[in-house]
Amino acid sequence: MKIIKGGICAVDGVLASGSRKGKYGVSVIVSKENTASAVFTSNKVVAAPVIVTKDVLKDGKLSAIVANSGNANCFTAEEGIASAREMTKRVADKLNIELNDVAVASTGIIGRKLPLDIINALIDESLNTLENSPEASFAAAEAIMTTDTFSKEFAVQTTLKDGSIVKIGGITKGSGMIAPNMGTMLCFITTDVKASAEELNDALKKAVDKSFNMVVVDGDESTNDTVILMSNGSSGKIDENFHEALGYVCTELAKMMAKDGEGETKYMEVHVNGAASSSDAKSASKAIVGSSLVKTALFGADPNWGRVVAAVGYSGAEMDEKIVDITFKSDNETVKIVEKGSILAFDGTDELKTAEKIMQNDEIEIIVDLNLGDHSAAAYGCDLSYDYVKINSEYST
Amino acid sequence: MKIIKGGICAVDGVLASGSRKGKYGVSVIVSKENTASAVFTSNKVVAAPVIVTKDVLKDGKLSAIVANSGNANCFTAEEGIASAREMTKRVADKLNIELNDVAVASTGIIGRKLPLDIINALIDESLNTLENSPEASFAAAEAIMTTDTFSKEFAVQTTLKDGSIVKIGGITKGSGMIAPNMGTMLCFITTDVKASAEELNDALKKAVDKSFNMVVVDGDESTNDTVILMSNGSSGKIDENFHEALGYVCTELAKMMAKDGEGETKYMEVHVNGAASSSDAKSASKAIVGSSLVKTALFGADPNWGRVVAAVGYSGAEMDEKIVDITFKSDNETVKIVEKGSILAFDGTDELKTAEKIMQNDEIEIIVDLNLGDHSAAAYGCDLSYDYVKINSEYST
Repeated sequence: MKIIKGGICAVDGVLASGSRKGKYGVSVIVSKENTASAVFTSNKVVAAPVIVTKDVLKDGKLSAIVANSGNANCFTAEEGIASAREMTKRVADKLNIELNDVAVASTGIIGRKLPLDIINALIDESLNTLENSPEASFAAAEAIMTTDTFSKEFAVQTTLKDGSIVKIGGITKGSGMIAPNMGTMLCFITTDVKASAEELNDALKKAVDKSFNMVVVDGDESTNDTVILMSNGSSGKIDENFHEALGYVCTELAKMMAKDGEGETKYMEVHVNGAASSSDAKSASKAIVGSSLVKTALFGADPNWGRVVAAVGYSGAEMDEKIVDITFKSDNETVKIVEKGSILAFDGTDELKTAEKIMQNDEIEIIVDLNLGDHSAAAYGCDLSYDYVKINSEYST
Repeated sequence: MKIIKGGICAVDGVLASGSRKGKYGVSVIVSKENTASAVFTSNKVVAAPVIVTKDVLKDGKLSAIVANSGNANCFTAEEGIASAREMTKRVADKLNIELNDVAVASTGIIGRKLPLDIINALIDESLNTLENSPEASFAAAEAIMTTDTFSKEFAVQTTLKDGSIVKIGGITKGSGMIAPNMGTMLCFITTDVKASAEELNDALKKAVDKSFNMVVVDGDESTNDTVILMSNGSSGKIDENFHEALGYVCTELAKMMAKDGEGETKYMEVHVNGAASSSDAKSASKAIVGSSLVKTALFGADPNWGRVVAAVGYSGAEMDEKIVDITFKSDNETVKIVEKGSILAFDGTDELKTAEKIMQNDEIEIIVDLNLGDHSAAAYGCDLSYDYVKINSEYST
């Protein structure tokens, strides 16, 4: 597997573009007659574009995606559906493709009418600047940003078992409201693997489950979450190598989202090992990255591992505090804080001093070994800072 | 039912006291040969005093409670159990009561040895100042405070069906880490109702379920949560009137905790009506008060009701966005924001202006009617402010 440049445009023939005006942005991605699958929010309040795209993807075929930022087109009743369909129609007409082959996604504030005049102008601008280039992928990634502070792209190529080279490229946007499942996230992934819609769906679900579903920023779940995987089928047949590469792309994009969590000053990666079950490993690692107390301790560079233990304790995961190991880690240093339930890093110890030094880093790893079984999971998150409060208390004004 | 003064000392014969030294405090409550019951944290990591008190209460009898703040005596292994027992022994010896009739509770930082020298000196001081007076109840309430900014007491008297007057008094401490069930809370309730330990337990569980279990501050659950109800049995026999009065005391104490949530600048009360089931009403109202996005919007006085809708959507409660009503309310004003799924408070409307004015208040009520059934629930919370982050990022240093 090799990291390559170009984001979604790393895949031959994929056209992309993006344009912005003030807080609004529009991205268009075109790859005609693709096979496609998607994963959506599990929120019971579902935005109009999600309803439309679910319908579009019923036949597993897709030729283009149009996405906007600045307005979620959610809780907008029948008018919202009409607006979402108007977005897809504008793209279909111009590109001379089927209306039913255009997906749509939106992100932004809930409960406000989509400003179609602005969005339509941005769609036209995007349609006029489509190209297959790293710059075009970058523009598409930029145009879907809301409170994101940097655009997020990633691409790899890998060799399938049949010897063919397959490429996978993705763009995504975060950055608050991430979890319990996915977040306010849009993610569009292109590839050239040969696969049915069902095979793509199976691969995508597995990849999302261990990547985007393991990111926690604030515990809120959005009404608009959409991850679309589309393939032109020009390379070899889907196999385990593709699954692995897709998982890698989604995990790298998920980490970028965590690193750009709203107000983030420190990134945290939590590994829970030795869990009695896979779901225990997941729930424990997510409880730790999601804990407001762990997050504020991280912000304050405070090695308050007691909050880590407490989070595991209420996660629902099986645990025995008498045999737990806890390790803190940064790029340069690693220290065991608790070993088999005994505290090593108490006041005055070198272990505590090292833990304090580790907490000063921008990227921290917390490793918990429950010593109960052989299941592991990783979760990705960030600290809770003054800026998270600032960003979210001023959002709609 | 009548609100009376005196907190836990409103009940005749209850002795109380409290003393503090720096960040440590000790409260002692004495009421000999009481019947008692308790509710504890459901966290799998359980502090030493919780283990000891569970054991003490097995026979449903209690004569005294000793509680300390400043150190949770949690994740402190066998030494922690020994320290907790030493606390109870010191009280039992001095008061000449059974060791097995003294409960113990702790709140504070996890994973540090209990500083027994300081705590013992405070116990002695408290034991020498026991009295039955409003001042003594206040001192006990003060001594268990951690990040609380005000002490919390409440007492009522009510007439039972047999004509006798029963009194109920409580003290509690919050204030972060409240939810999913209870929080970092200690609560001690005295009464004179005649009841078995089982009857007290039944009444207490019901009362906690609709009060302390409906408070959300930050979604973390503590390892030390303890609510003890003790009765000297000198008044009439337990009945529904007692249940109602106990529910009222617990709800008022729960509201005080929400109003003193860490960093709180605004209090929020959420009522979900018209739910299809009681658990739906509870989960929807708790999702709203617990949402970081609703909490930051509250802090920013931003009537961002879309976040309210989204929280209901991911709460797991049955809902149909097309028939939902949402109302915002303050002391002086009420405005319907959404009626049967239609937005009334959009840009430029008087409704939105009123909503903005309501959000300027210190206490806000959010009322959601799901219009699906006849189940209701209320949940209590507060905003997420810069100070929450400040308090929790500096806690253990």
